[in-house]
Amino acid sequence: MKHKNTSKKNTRKILNPFEFIKNESDTKIYKYEYTTEHAITEEKNNLEKINEHKLTNSIVWLNIDGSDKNIIKKIATIYNIHDLLIEDILSHGQRPKYDEVNEVIFTLLYMLYYNDDTKEIEIEQISIVLTKSTILTFQENADKDVFKNISTLLKNKAGKIRNRNADYLFYALLDTIVNSYYQVIEKLGIEIENLETTIIENPRQDAFKRINQLRKELILLKRNTVPVRDLIASIMRMENELLEERTKKYLKDVYDQIMQANELAENYREFTMSLQDLYLNTVNLKMNEIMKTLAILTAVMAPATVIGGIFGMNFEKMPIIHNNLGFLITVGLMILIPIFMLWWFFYRGWFKKEY
Amino acid sequence: MKHKNTSKKNTRKILNPFEFIKNESDTKIYKYEYTTEHAITEEKNNLEKINEHKLTNSIVWLNIDGSDKNIIKKIATIYNIHDLLIEDILSHGQRPKYDEVNEVIFTLLYMLYYNDDTKEIEIEQISIVLTKSTILTFQENADKDVFKNISTLLKNKAGKIRNRNADYLFYALLDTIVNSYYQVIEKLGIEIENLETTIIENPRQDAFKRINQLRKELILLKRNTVPVRDLIASIMRMENELLEERTKKYLKDVYDQIMQANELAENYREFTMSLQDLYLNTVNLKMNEIMKTLAILTAVMAPATVIGGIFGMNFEKMPIIHNNLGFLITVGLMILIPIFMLWWFFYRGWFKKEY
Amino acid sequence: MKHKNTSKKNTRKILNPFEFIKNESDTKIYKYEYTTEHAITEEKNNLEKINEHKLTNSIVWLNIDGSDKNIIKKIATIYNIHDLLIEDILSHGQRPKYDEVNEVIFTLLYMLYYNDDTKEIEIEQISIVLTKSTILTFQENADKDVFKNISTLLKNKAGKIRNRNADYLFYALLDTIVNSYYQVIEKLGIEIENLETTIIENPRQDAFKRINQLRKELILLKRNTVPVRDLIASIMRMENELLEERTKKYLKDVYDQIMQANELAENYREFTMSLQDLYLNTVNLKMNEIMKTLAILTAVMAPATVIGGIFGMNFEKMPIIHNNLGFLITVGLMILIPIFMLWWFFYRGWFKKEY
Amino acid sequence: MKHKNTSKKNTRKILNPFEFIKNESDTKIYKYEYTTEHAITEEKNNLEKINEHKLTNSIVWLNIDGSDKNIIKKIATIYNIHDLLIEDILSHGQRPKYDEVNEVIFTLLYMLYYNDDTKEIEIEQISIVLTKSTILTFQENADKDVFKNISTLLKNKAGKIRNRNADYLFYALLDTIVNSYYQVIEKLGIEIENLETTIIENPRQDAFKRINQLRKELILLKRNTVPVRDLIASIMRMENELLEERTKKYLKDVYDQIMQANELAENYREFTMSLQDLYLNTVNLKMNEIMKTLAILTAVMAPATVIGGIFGMNFEKMPIIHNNLGFLITVGLMILIPIFMLWWFFYRGWFKKEY
Amino acid sequence: MKHKNTSKKNTRKILNPFEFIKNESDTKIYKYEYTTEHAITEEKNNLEKINEHKLTNSIVWLNIDGSDKNIIKKIATIYNIHDLLIEDILSHGQRPKYDEVNEVIFTLLYMLYYNDDTKEIEIEQISIVLTKSTILTFQENADKDVFKNISTLLKNKAGKIRNRNADYLFYALLDTIVNSYYQVIEKLGIEIENLETTIIENPRQDAFKRINQLRKELILLKRNTVPVRDLIASIMRMENELLEERTKKYLKDVYDQIMQANELAENYREFTMSLQDLYLNTVNLKMNEIMKTLAILTAVMAPATVIGGIFGMNFEKMPIIHNNLGFLITVGLMILIPIFMLWWFFYRGWFKKEY
Repeated sequence: MKHKNTSKKNTRKILNPFEFIKNESDTKIYKYEYTTEHAITEEKNNLEKINEHKLTNSIVWLNIDGSDKNIIKKIATIYNIHDLLIEDILSHGQRPKYDEVNEVIFTLLYMLYYNDDTKEIEIEQISIVLTKSTILTFQENADKDVFKNISTLLKNKAGKIRNRNADYLFYALLDTIVNSYYQVIEKLGIEIENLETTIIENPRQDAFKRINQLRKELILLKRNTVPVRDLIASIMRMENELLEERTKKYLKDVYDQIMQANELAENYREFTMSLQDLYLNTVNLKMNEIMKTLAILTAVMAPATVIGGIFGMNFEKMPIIHNNLGFLITVGLMILIPIFMLWWFFYRGWFKKEY
Repeated sequence: MKHKNTSKKNTRKILNPFEFIKNESDTKIYKYEYTTEHAITEEKNNLEKINEHKLTNSIVWLNIDGSDKNIIKKIATIYNIHDLLIEDILSHGQRPKYDEVNEVIFTLLYMLYYNDDTKEIEIEQISIVLTKSTILTFQENADKDVFKNISTLLKNKAGKIRNRNADYLFYALLDTIVNSYYQVIEKLGIEIENLETTIIENPRQDAFKRINQLRKELILLKRNTVPVRDLIASIMRMENELLEERTKKYLKDVYDQIMQANELAENYREFTMSLQDLYLNTVNLKMNEIMKTLAILTAVMAPATVIGGIFGMNFEKMPIIHNNLGFLITVGLMILIPIFMLWWFFYRGWFKKEY
Repeated sequence: MKHKNTSKKNTRKILNPFEFIKNESDTKIYKYEYTTEHAITEEKNNLEKINEHKLTNSIVWLNIDGSDKNIIKKIATIYNIHDLLIEDILSHGQRPKYDEVNEVIFTLLYMLYYNDDTKEIEIEQISIVLTKSTILTFQENADKDVFKNISTLLKNKAGKIRNRNADYLFYALLDTIVNSYYQVIEKLGIEIENLETTIIENPRQDAFKRINQLRKELILLKRNTVPVRDLIASIMRMENELLEERTKKYLKDVYDQIMQANELAENYREFTMSLQDLYLNTVNLKMNEIMKTLAILTAVMAPATVIGGIFGMNFEKMPIIHNNLGFLITVGLMILIPIFMLWWFFYRGWFKKEY
Repeated sequence: MKHKNTSKKNTRKILNPFEFIKNESDTKIYKYEYTTEHAITEEKNNLEKINEHKLTNSIVWLNIDGSDKNIIKKIATIYNIHDLLIEDILSHGQRPKYDEVNEVIFTLLYMLYYNDDTKEIEIEQISIVLTKSTILTFQENADKDVFKNISTLLKNKAGKIRNRNADYLFYALLDTIVNSYYQVIEKLGIEIENLETTIIENPRQDAFKRINQLRKELILLKRNTVPVRDLIASIMRMENELLEERTKKYLKDVYDQIMQANELAENYREFTMSLQDLYLNTVNLKMNEIMKTLAILTAVMAPATVIGGIFGMNFEKMPIIHNNLGFLITVGLMILIPIFMLWWFFYRGWFKKEY
Repeated sequence: MKHKNTSKKNTRKILNPFEFIKNESDTKIYKYEYTTEHAITEEKNNLEKINEHKLTNSIVWLNIDGSDKNIIKKIATIYNIHDLLIEDILSHGQRPKYDEVNEVIFTLLYMLYYNDDTKEIEIEQISIVLTKSTILTFQENADKDVFKNISTLLKNKAGKIRNRNADYLFYALLDTIVNSYYQVIEKLGIEIENLETTIIENPRQDAFKRINQLRKELILLKRNTVPVRDLIASIMRMENELLEERTKKYLKDVYDQIMQANELAENYREFTMSLQDLYLNTVNLKMNEIMKTLAILTAVMAPATVIGGIFGMNFEKMPIIHNNLGFLITVGLMILIPIFMLWWFFYRGWFKKEY
């Protein structure tokens, strides 16, 4: 028994700030039994004869979708799962972990979903128990069935799953979960790329805040993928007869994919940072544009002020002061000089927008 | 059968935002048959006797250039290719993938072109099916033949391809595809380097936008190269009698090259970021230059305003107010002081351009 | 005997600028003796019969909690520990190290705590001496018992520790220590993430200073984890019959975890840097906002000044000067023009806050 | 035959923007023949008996310095070199490549020189053909002999080259070439470091442009070193009886060195980027200094303007207006207030230069 | 014989811009002879009987401290060291190198010291010659004995050195040298961290320059550690009977430590860059603070100027112009408005310092 995460409550908020999916539906039990030749799918309402094999030399996959404590505990009793593992399955917010106990390989990790409506990442805890001829999967939330594609593949006789042992199904399950990380990152990526367009065309404060939030989500996401990466590396190192050598090769692909996901998340994280820079710079340029206009306004008024000051002086003898057109000429000059200055600034290209 | 990419439609836009080349021409079929001694090249109009070997112990390469569904399905029937693979070949926008099914190695990946006219990256899906003595390649677009150089090499008796098995041709095909990534990156690189000159000499907004676009293209390009990198790594790990050990060594070279391409893309991505900084900084300096000029204008007027204010005061006793030259002297001063200030600023080097 | 760290005093301040926990309580001695079947826990007040095994083939773990020199020296004599090791145990501020002396594996490293009250990292020196059937641990500080969770696991008969040799306990101790690094980094991470919110909503100087401090703490923390990483790598390379091969596999997990901790620390370090940028940029934007307001104020006054200057001129013939409403019209204009300008600026969106 | 770089003309400009050294001198042929005991050096004017060994079991190194097509083709005929290799030797601007053809190892790569006068990188194409007992080297340019140091070592009986096979000489040649990259990077590095001093002390625009150019040269240089790195890795993987195992170990040193060169180039590239930042920041600070001075000028004038305005008002009853000293007192105030303000600014340290 | 560094004079300045320690004292010769049981230490004044073993099967370590050419040449003759090695030992400024010549392992590398007084890095060239039962070390400078701690360990009978062959001593020497890099980096690190405090509290130009210098020193330091890293890797790869397998394991620790040193140097280099940013940003904020104050000054004067302008107009009919208190009221307004504005600015928090 590995002795990590003793303070479960504390770590939960740290690791999984994402919304945990609420569990409102009943716990469902799906039983898949298959050999190379046959495949039986059942939705069980009760636990009767649940561990009975109808086919000879078949592999059974029991997918428990929901977190009804009683059902989980009963199943644990039937399959003789160690109490500490049950505790893990029923827990929340643990770091991804694996364990070998009593000829069983146990894995706890997280499925990620991107909720298109709330634009938030949702998380679901998945526990997998691998024994010689049985795989148990515990999905925290009964509303979503993350392994639907695998059950489809199971029905396909030509698929590899049917031709291999339980460990290949184990690989397929891990692959599906890791795939979900990739998909979430890509969803975040699309949003980030859209935000870029927004920022270039019309920098708004809420875009800036959203970027900030996305960057934080990417950091948190990386904090979830990195332990899974090492978990898979550990499983590959494991010398357990439950895992065939050729299955480990497939696990290497899963490892590669999680590395890709990690790399992609890192790329996007850097991208958000450069987007923030872009935002701040664009806002800065816009601000400078305003300051430039104001400075031009102030500057073109200065000569007129000086001219006004000149003829406002109280000298006894001043030219054109007694001329009837003097005032008009002077005021005309006070208007023409700013206009000339503006033309000159325009000619120099000072009014061109630079961002 | 690997069970990835179930939601093909969604991922397409993500992975391949580049324009897919439209398929307007007819599907062409090229058949290359070769042994060490002989090589036969045919352009077939129909599928008759397509799988017939004219030479003993020869290797046949069937290059299907175009995406006519009927032809592809017929060929699949002739060569006994699994339905799921056909589905992959006819699909769009999948992530690069490989598979081993029924003693066949299947690979799906993308050829990239840089369109010099539109300055856009174009993408073409390539599927390769490797069997013991036959290689099938499916090119989505009939207008471009990406494997022209390989067919040239095939005619050359001294070339390695003629002396090796089908797996060496497989390697040569992968090498050509990976090479295309390198070439596209280099093309992007040239444009980026040209943009740098533009920005230093004459920072314009469209250059800035083009950089942004290029950076995004580089990120997307990396998202295409990274999975291919891992795909090749997986093929190298594969223990399949179709692949000889010595061919795997050549695949290592392909792997190295894609790593180089990746590294280069990363370098250019960083470069675009520093170019953006450069642009913003140059624009900023230019803006500051304008602000400086305006501030100088405003500042040199201030003393004249003060002097005007002095002699505009209504004191009873004021010096030189009754002097005939008083006005001229004062106005002269109001003109000379700004001139002196400008000279002094010039002397201090304030008019030197700094960017 | 490895010959590092000869200048102990100098390096101490460098490596451990964190507060060393003061030792105020008495040194306590806990003796755990266990076989697969039985486990005995004793708190010893004296050293009598301390090295006596009550069970056959049992493993004894002696946890000395405190740094009473006399007790430590006596124990060293009883267990025949080399003088140089005793010197290490009683020293302060050494770099983490390991050594193989006289069929003993010695390890010195640091436990880290995050003090939630003072928001400071506290450090405690831990020395571990592994022999064939005995493990001695020396904790510098009697107030904290860092290995409480392990003693709990020891009482659990199903736990792996009870079924394995002393080297597994050794692994469990290292794992606990490395775990503490992870927890401290996570605590720092939470604070950093909270600071980000503070900075975006209300950038204050003390937040800026706190970030600076946290970044420094992260650098120092990395300086502590990197040597531990290499220390564990060295132990894994060690060919010592005290360490079983299967235990080394577990050490690989510890190695992975410290790498994760390191990566996380690096991520947070980069994050603090981007936070500093964010702070400075936000402050800059705020400052620019002020400058903009002031520039607007100055600019809207300029036309009024010019108009005042116009009618302050001393021309003989000036329009509306003799008009009774002239003054009111002019002053009205002097008030309306700024108001119009302000409206126009508002209309252009110049008063919108951009940060 | 590897089938890369079909579009040689296009890639040339991309890969080698450096000046290719013009070939103005005649092609020279140097023949070195050596055994452990003896070494013969000849400069040949014609190709007569060029492939004749004068010593038993000797190794011959033929260094062809220049690119006279006729001579190269004749030598190719004498040594039975494949036509495709001859094409490579005579080509320009190819990516570094290696090939195994007809029991020959062929390598094409580039020697780099830093021209101290023009401050430009010059490039020379080198082709190496390794056979059992003969090495042929083709240097594009007759003016420079890059392998002078090796010919010196050949004359030294104690040197390793004399005691080993042709593959050791092959290693020595590669080592010399890779060494040239290191030296060029170091030369660039010195210039970069000198530019830093220039920028800190006197930021000038041409320094900025030179940095930009150097950074670009470093990127291009990396684009040349990375393929050579992988080329050497490929040679190390090669299983060819021409290469002894112990020579591969030396190649590992060459690999290490090119990695170092790469790392150094990367460091300098980053350094140039931080230098650009430094330049822009320094220029910015200088500009701010000017703006500060102008703002001070404008600000100290404002109170005087106000005072002038006060006494320019046309109230009937105004104080000190009839006082004889009124004007002097007021003007004195208008002069003293700015002086006081300047003193206060000075006292506050506003005139201190900050860069 | 490796053929690197032919242009020794040129590379010297590049690699070692640090002050070479002047050699003013006489060359000293220390002879240590030891077996597991006995250890003899002698300071020799002449070379008589220098190669005589007093103990049977003993290992002799000859530490030549100083660079007296005659003594070194005599020793070389006595121990039959190759001329080329002697040349290396007497040279300056070479890149770190190793060589195997005539059953001897030769290593040349550098010891680094941080001079606390001059705050400069000092460098000393160390050459090590390892033969079967003798180690020769040549220290360039007689003033410093870098291997003092090892001679201390030699006297300690329990130390590992006494129980092992000469290669273990060789390892211990390398370890001491690599340790010196670590210590120098830590010293630089402390200074950098102190500079950070200086910059935050009182940004001064000399701190900025010092940071720049430290960053350059770190780059140069890395340029010294990276070749040593690869040198040690090469030694580990070496198959030489002088090196036992178990000693290579210790060399792995040295390798790890130099990697740590490298990482630390890189961290500090990045830190100096962020410090420069910090400096420039702080200076910028300070400058902005000044600009803000000046802009406030200018802005608060503007309304007063306008009011002055209003009542300076020459309209015939103007209100309160004939009122006795008119002037006082108006001037009061001209004073109160700026005061009100200042209060409002204060209330808005514009006077708060933000850095």
